[in-house]
Amino acid sequence: MITTPRFITFEGGEGAGKSTQIRLLAAWLRDQGATVCLTREPGGSPAAELIRDLLLKGAVDRWLPISEALMLAAARADHIERTIRPALSRGEWVLCDRFYDSSIAYQGAGRGIGINKVKEIQKIAFGSMIPDLTFVLDLPVEIGLSRALAREGAKSDMEDRFERMDRSFHERLRHAFLEIAADEPGRCELINADSDINNLHTLIRNALARRFSS
Amino acid sequence: MITTPRFITFEGGEGAGKSTQIRLLAAWLRDQGATVCLTREPGGSPAAELIRDLLLKGAVDRWLPISEALMLAAARADHIERTIRPALSRGEWVLCDRFYDSSIAYQGAGRGIGINKVKEIQKIAFGSMIPDLTFVLDLPVEIGLSRALAREGAKSDMEDRFERMDRSFHERLRHAFLEIAADEPGRCELINADSDINNLHTLIRNALARRFSS
Repeated sequence: MITTPRFITFEGGEGAGKSTQIRLLAAWLRDQGATVCLTREPGGSPAAELIRDLLLKGAVDRWLPISEALMLAAARADHIERTIRPALSRGEWVLCDRFYDSSIAYQGAGRGIGINKVKEIQKIAFGSMIPDLTFVLDLPVEIGLSRALAREGAKSDMEDRFERMDRSFHERLRHAFLEIAADEPGRCELINADSDINNLHTLIRNALARRFSS
Repeated sequence: MITTPRFITFEGGEGAGKSTQIRLLAAWLRDQGATVCLTREPGGSPAAELIRDLLLKGAVDRWLPISEALMLAAARADHIERTIRPALSRGEWVLCDRFYDSSIAYQGAGRGIGINKVKEIQKIAFGSMIPDLTFVLDLPVEIGLSRALAREGAKSDMEDRFERMDRSFHERLRHAFLEIAADEPGRCELINADSDINNLHTLIRNALARRFSS
């Protein structure tokens, strides 16, 4: 049923369940005989993972918003060149946990540097790299944050710098992701993430089948 | 004699003696009663120093040239906002070991991403921040590299990633710095760095006096 390899991204605020759903989808695609490159941002290549570490840990005000946007673009250029494009060339599916839209939402809207400036930086960094499909997992802010905090609380090495930003930051994120999904229905599939894990997985598989089956 | 605080940068290839000369000038200015903020790039603020570490160490091909340019701009935005502008506001002299011109020479010319692209990135990152005076220390590549290697050989924690780039890279750097000095004589003072430390210090003090004394 699933034939041509695709580049699929998962987007959404903190605690929306992206990592869980992307792993389930990767496992399902592999069961269908596909080769899957499961990757993530920030990071996804050795150099880009070094930048991830700097961005996701430490004090909330550790970085200026503009520095975040530039570092994310630096990391993404590396990730595209050294992980995503090679995997697609080898005929693999690429599933990526966060991508371009997260920079638009987090730095452009959430951190307030403006969506156009973020787009300009990305264009300089790598030109254009548009996913075939983007799942936007939407969840009310309070539910997402309480899930995210429970998850981070169980770890010793906390990647929670953005989670600790204020409530209005997270509201701006959510709004930005909803706008992206509304503006680009041809690429984006909006998923109400306030549901159980298996339901969401089924919704995601169904969307995939509807969009890509021949 | 020296009154108004100024923003002065030191530029040039590897081993040109920038760090030595900037320390001597800072000491001399302090002897004259000036308050001096002695800083450096990449780095110069806590966040920017984290980026320095990633850029100056490790394998030559660790970063794509475009990622280097973006990370340097991220670091420079932080350095300007959190170190340089506050120091100038407090009425201090700011002496900076490398700045904007190094990105033009290293990433634009040396690493080949183009001078215009580097300028575009810097403009997005922080707008404009032009030094009052830039000393460009020029030295034949082989002399500079042998000095730099001798210096790095004595350290355990080597910041030598750029030094290890090939000879043609260093020739492009030198050429780019000479062009900058030729294009902007009002801002730049070209210094032949193939001389002894005390001679160079005298040349630098004389240039300062000639340009800034009332």
